Amino acid sequence: MALIVQKFGGTSVGSVERIEQVADKVKKFREAGNDLVIVLSAMSGETNRLIALAKQISDQPLPRELDVIVSTGEQVTIGLLAMALNKRGVPAVSYTGSQVRILTDSSHTKARILQIDDQKIRADLKAGRVVVVAGFQGVDEQGNITTLGRGGSDTTGVALAAALKADECQIYTDVDGVYTTDPRVVAQAQRLEKITFEEMLEMASLGSKVLQIRAVEFAGKYNVPLRVLHSFKEGPGTLITIDEEESMEQPIISGIAFNRDEAKLTIRGVPDTPGVAFKILGPISAANIEVDMIVQNVAHDNTTDFTFTVHRNDYQAAMLILENTSREIGAREVVGDTNIAKVSIVGVGMRSHAGVASRMFESLAKEGINILMISTSEIKVSVVIEEKYLELAVRSLHTAFELDAPARQGE
Amino acid sequence: MALIVQKFGGTSVGSVERIEQVADKVKKFREAGNDLVIVLSAMSGETNRLIALAKQISDQPLPRELDVIVSTGEQVTIGLLAMALNKRGVPAVSYTGSQVRILTDSSHTKARILQIDDQKIRADLKAGRVVVVAGFQGVDEQGNITTLGRGGSDTTGVALAAALKADECQIYTDVDGVYTTDPRVVAQAQRLEKITFEEMLEMASLGSKVLQIRAVEFAGKYNVPLRVLHSFKEGPGTLITIDEEESMEQPIISGIAFNRDEAKLTIRGVPDTPGVAFKILGPISAANIEVDMIVQNVAHDNTTDFTFTVHRNDYQAAMLILENTSREIGAREVVGDTNIAKVSIVGVGMRSHAGVASRMFESLAKEGINILMISTSEIKVSVVIEEKYLELAVRSLHTAFELDAPARQGE
Repeated sequence: MALIVQKFGGTSVGSVERIEQVADKVKKFREAGNDLVIVLSAMSGETNRLIALAKQISDQPLPRELDVIVSTGEQVTIGLLAMALNKRGVPAVSYTGSQVRILTDSSHTKARILQIDDQKIRADLKAGRVVVVAGFQGVDEQGNITTLGRGGSDTTGVALAAALKADECQIYTDVDGVYTTDPRVVAQAQRLEKITFEEMLEMASLGSKVLQIRAVEFAGKYNVPLRVLHSFKEGPGTLITIDEEESMEQPIISGIAFNRDEAKLTIRGVPDTPGVAFKILGPISAANIEVDMIVQNVAHDNTTDFTFTVHRNDYQAAMLILENTSREIGAREVVGDTNIAKVSIVGVGMRSHAGVASRMFESLAKEGINILMISTSEIKVSVVIEEKYLELAVRSLHTAFELDAPARQGE
Repeated sequence: MALIVQKFGGTSVGSVERIEQVADKVKKFREAGNDLVIVLSAMSGETNRLIALAKQISDQPLPRELDVIVSTGEQVTIGLLAMALNKRGVPAVSYTGSQVRILTDSSHTKARILQIDDQKIRADLKAGRVVVVAGFQGVDEQGNITTLGRGGSDTTGVALAAALKADECQIYTDVDGVYTTDPRVVAQAQRLEKITFEEMLEMASLGSKVLQIRAVEFAGKYNVPLRVLHSFKEGPGTLITIDEEESMEQPIISGIAFNRDEAKLTIRGVPDTPGVAFKILGPISAANIEVDMIVQNVAHDNTTDFTFTVHRNDYQAAMLILENTSREIGAREVVGDTNIAKVSIVGVGMRSHAGVASRMFESLAKEGINILMISTSEIKVSVVIEEKYLELAVRSLHTAFELDAPARQGE
C-alpha cells in the first residue's frame, strides 16, 4: 500500500463535471489500496475573478486582505471534491491550509512554507479517509491566512508529500508528461519516462512550463519522487526523481528547451576597470529587473563589451537605465535587440560526455545559424540566436542529439 | 467614545460600489470617535450560488463540506471591505469566524455560538483598527468550519456586541426601522423610535422579517441595545432595548403584525378523554410539522372540537395525518381552511392596560370581520380571520390603537 499525494490544477477542477471525473479517478486509486492526499487548486478562472474583484477596490490590493479573498477559491473546490468522494462511498474530509496547519512565513501573496502539521492528516488516513487539502495557501504564526503565490498548489503538493514521506507526489496537468522538447515545434518530440530534478529545473527555468520551479526545487531538496501526468488521459507520465542510474547507459541530452521571452542589451567600449560589471548591473537590479545571461568580452583597446539579457517586458526600462550608465562611465554606445531566442540543451549525461557543446555548435553551424551569446552550466548549454532561426535550431538539435521518436523518424 | 458593532447584510455589500458606500459610512462613524466592529454577510446571491454548486454534486450536500464551501462568501466581503477602509486611510483588519475564534457547537449548517474569544479584536481596537468580521460562521472545538444557518449574520453581530459589551449593535438593512405595521398595507404606518425585545420578538415571529428571531433573543438575553437602520439612508432607525420606561406614558400597542402563511385544521367530535390533545398533535409533531395556534372547545355532547394552525406548506401533510388520527380515535370529521390570516396586536403597554383585547374585538366587529380563533400572551393578542379581510383588519386596528402617523391622518 502506497501513500500518494495527488495534485489537480485549476482546469482539472474547472467545473462540477471535471470534479466528478477527478473523484472517479481518486476512487480508482483508493480502491487499488492506496492512501491518498489530494491537493486542489481553485476552479480555473476563479482566482482571476477574485483578484479582479479586489482590484476594483484598489489597484494595489492590501496583500493580507487579498490572501483572505483569494484563498476562498480552493476552499470551494476542496468542499466539492470531498462531497463528490463521499457520494461515491469513499470517505473523505477537506482541510484548508489553516486547518491542516500549513505554517508559512508572513509574506502575503508569496509566502513560504515553514512547517506542516501532519497529525490530523495521519489520523484521517489511518481511519481510512481520503484527505483533500486546499493548495496554494497556509497560515502564519499569528493565524493570518497566507497564499504561496501563483502555481503554489504544486508546492503544497510536494511539501505535503515531503512532510508525510509519501511514496510519490503526482501532479496532474493538461499534458501527459515532460517532453524532449515542445511537440508543437518538433513533431518527433518524445515523452520522457524519467528526468532528474536538476534537468527538470533547467527545463522549467528555460520555459517548459509543466511544473513550478519552486515545487521542483522542493521535491529535489526533500527527494520526493514527482510524477507529471495528464488529468484525464491514462498513461505513466514522466517521473522526476534523483539520478540513481548515473552509471548506466542513458541519453546524453534529455531535452531541448527554448524561450522567446528575452531581449539582449549591449554596452560597447566600456573602460575596463575593476567594478565595471557592478556599475552596469547595479542600477538594473536596483530597478528590480532580473538579468539572465551575462557575457563580457575584453576588446583590443583596453575597453570591454558587456552584453546581458532581460525579460522582454523589462527591455525599455533596462535600455533607459543603461543609456544613463553609459554616459556616466563614458562608454562608447548602447545597442539592444528584442528579436532573439534562447535555445538550451539539458542533460545530466553531459557530465560524463565531452564534446557536447561542440556538437551543438556544429549542428547550428551546419544550418547557418549564427550564435550571439553562449552560457553553460554543468548540465546545460544555452545559446542566444536570432529569433527567426528558433524552430530550425530546435529541430536540428533534436535530431543531432538523437531525441527524435523512432516510430516517427523520417516523417 | 462608544464601541459599536455594525452589521451589514447581503444587499448592503452586494457589489463593489455598495462595499465602497459601506466603507464611507464606517469611516464617518470612525471619525466621530467610535470603536467599530463590522460584521458582514456574503454578497447577495453568493450564498445561493455556492449552495447551487454543492447541489450539483449532491442533492443532500454533506453538511461539513457545505459549510466549508458556503463560508467563503463572507470571507470575500470582509477582505474587500478591509481593503476599502484602508484605502480611505482607516486602518482595518478582517477576520473569519475561525480567526476571531467564534466557537460553536458542531451542528453544521445550523451551529450555535458557544463562546467568542475577544482578545484579538480588543487588541486591534486598542491599536486603532476597525475590525471586520465574517458573519454567519464559526468554528467548532475540532477546528471544523461551521455556519449558523440563514440570517446568522445578525446573530454574529449581537453575539460579538455581547462578548465585547458594546454600547450598541446596529443592524443595517433595506428598511429604515421597525414600523407599527407593514407600510404597504397601511399608508399611515409609522417608524417606531423604540421597541422592547419582547415586542420585537412577537413582531418578528409574526412575520415582520426585519430581524432574525435568534438575534433578538440573543440581544434580549444579554441586554445588547439593538438598532435597526437603513444601509444607505440617514436616520435614527429603531432602537430595540429593554423596557426601562415602563412607568412612563407610552402607547398601549407598539405595532400590528400579520401573516398569511398559516392554514387551519379542525377535528370535530373528538371523545373528550384525557390525553386527547397529545393523541392529535403527537403524530403531527412526529412528522416535524410545527403547530402555531391551538384552540380546544368542549362541546355539549361530551365531545370536543380541536383546532390548530400549521404553515401552509405543511397543510396537505398535516391533513393526511389528522384524517388517520380521526379514524383511530373515532372523531366525527376533519375540516381545514387555507384561506386564513393571522393578525396580532403587540405591546408591552397591554400589561398595565385592561380592555385591550376587547377594544380589538370591538374594532373588528365594527367592520363585520368574523374571528375564527383567538390566542393571547402577556404582550400580544392574535386572531385568525378570513384572509380576504386581512388589509381591512390591519387598517382598522392601526387606527383604533392610535398608531396612524399624525402628519398623514385623514389621507
